[in-house]
Amino acid sequence: VRIALDAMGTDRHPAVEVEGAVQALGELPGEFELLLVGEAERIEAELSQHAGVDRSRLRVIHAPDRIEPGEPAVTAARRKPTSSIVVGLKLQKEGEADAFISAGSTGAVMAASVFLLRPITGVDRPAVATILPTTTQPLLLIDAGANVDCKPNQLLQFARLGSIYVEDVWKRPNPRIGLLNIGEEPEKGDERSVETHALLAKSELNFAGNIEGRDVIRGNCDVLVSDGFAGNVLLKFYESIMGFMHGLLRQELAQNPDARIDIERLFHGFDYTDYGGAPLLGVNGVTIICHGGSPPRAISSAVRMAIQSVEMGVVAHIARAVSGGTAPEGAAEGA
Amino acid sequence: VRIALDAMGTDRHPAVEVEGAVQALGELPGEFELLLVGEAERIEAELSQHAGVDRSRLRVIHAPDRIEPGEPAVTAARRKPTSSIVVGLKLQKEGEADAFISAGSTGAVMAASVFLLRPITGVDRPAVATILPTTTQPLLLIDAGANVDCKPNQLLQFARLGSIYVEDVWKRPNPRIGLLNIGEEPEKGDERSVETHALLAKSELNFAGNIEGRDVIRGNCDVLVSDGFAGNVLLKFYESIMGFMHGLLRQELAQNPDARIDIERLFHGFDYTDYGGAPLLGVNGVTIICHGGSPPRAISSAVRMAIQSVEMGVVAHIARAVSGGTAPEGAAEGA
Repeated sequence: VRIALDAMGTDRHPAVEVEGAVQALGELPGEFELLLVGEAERIEAELSQHAGVDRSRLRVIHAPDRIEPGEPAVTAARRKPTSSIVVGLKLQKEGEADAFISAGSTGAVMAASVFLLRPITGVDRPAVATILPTTTQPLLLIDAGANVDCKPNQLLQFARLGSIYVEDVWKRPNPRIGLLNIGEEPEKGDERSVETHALLAKSELNFAGNIEGRDVIRGNCDVLVSDGFAGNVLLKFYESIMGFMHGLLRQELAQNPDARIDIERLFHGFDYTDYGGAPLLGVNGVTIICHGGSPPRAISSAVRMAIQSVEMGVVAHIARAVSGGTAPEGAAEGA
Repeated sequence: VRIALDAMGTDRHPAVEVEGAVQALGELPGEFELLLVGEAERIEAELSQHAGVDRSRLRVIHAPDRIEPGEPAVTAARRKPTSSIVVGLKLQKEGEADAFISAGSTGAVMAASVFLLRPITGVDRPAVATILPTTTQPLLLIDAGANVDCKPNQLLQFARLGSIYVEDVWKRPNPRIGLLNIGEEPEKGDERSVETHALLAKSELNFAGNIEGRDVIRGNCDVLVSDGFAGNVLLKFYESIMGFMHGLLRQELAQNPDARIDIERLFHGFDYTDYGGAPLLGVNGVTIICHGGSPPRAISSAVRMAIQSVEMGVVAHIARAVSGGTAPEGAAEGA
């Protein structure tokens, strides 16, 4: 397995990416090779600070340009052919890598992935799936913001994409699919939700019904299907409030040295850095998108996710499910 | 000011409502009268347990029927004319009360309010506004779940309703209006958000732009405008995660008796019981909807909200704003 890793994505690039790569090589099992993509000189300078790196499993691919966080995603992806994002994805397109990881501009990584890898035949819209920690076990939220104004049939596809990912990569058999909605009963919510509920109910998926905002935290499903609008609001709010609570308690404990509360342990399961990144599902390839603020730990977790996605053949599974699902794709104007 | 209070709404009715009423009469300033609506015998039995209640300011209005939480809201509101919700709202309709408060079925209270009080001329859809605590000062979220599939012009109306409420009842001059969205720039989000952004930007309102999920907690606006779908997901999730964090810390502190952390103080600003209830804005009257799990404190807070809404003339302000706003209501198919 060969993983192309954008070395220019994080806020502290390429130091964080290089350290994450070194961690991954040292800790993760299995045979894999890392291709660090970015300004070669800066990457080499960082590498020189890590002793004993196994260079037989790590190559540096020069890419002089960088897509900045503020740039319009689609145009940047097209106009910067020597950017680390485009160069890294092209390695996959040309068969020199099996996966791509980036903590750069989310919009640019998505746009370039769709543009270069192309959607899987039968997938209307590739979607970003992110992990949401709950009080029981984490769930996969799809879509987390890549797609708005989704149609019911597209939401059904998100459910299929998420179900396969959770089964293959998280090793949960027959994942329970929940639909994010504002009531439990099938007839609740907006028009789209009512139609999507009906499609999910008659699909081959293990549909667990509607999930309200207040039930998300209980983890009553494995895959939570949502339009990217509500999904993104939920995800961003979740991250911010956990960050806020963490800060509030740290402050409180600083004034209370007698308390033996291990706040890091308390918030451990809610820390996104443990989970790596968010897979872009539905393209002909493996793309994992990380936070710009990712620490090295998140990068090496993303490498682990990428390896599992490649080894389990997630892309092939999705292609089979989308072409052979119970929904009438053949009847649609489609691919 | 005469406030009709549904005594049969909370999970522990009528005990909670009676205690809340007694608290309100004892603590709140100003001249007001409470009309307790529900099963007269049970209400009287509860009242007999509170010594020294000023009965000259408290009347009991008999309503033998109750709309149960699970009942289909619209049909129940029409088919149960002697329910506490319908009887209480009719008091307002007939001029015998100036406001109505209920912790009963939210859907039934909304449906009966719209049915009996009627929307204000020019208001397409009355909306539920709820308080969201933030790290700075609370904001008003509108709509919190009463309306889905909203059009841009309806969202603009929600902004007007919320702006007037916050100015009149919260006494914040020229409230900043934020639009819940998945990006900061005007062109971000779904089609509806882009159009609503344009309408708000050219309106007479103090528009502060888009607010992302991660910025909600910072309180950068006074009124957060949203379709009821995303608004409800956000609100319900918020309530559940604060409840979860509260429980987690209480558990942790129970195992750590040396810690001198006042968890109730820490969560104080995030407790909805301090805030009373959610006003239904846009109807010809004052309706405040409380949680089914409200304690007496929340009921008396709702009484305070109702008094302020009546005294400030929120309904008349909304009627003026909706008929005289800068948006071309006259040109629409209208009223």
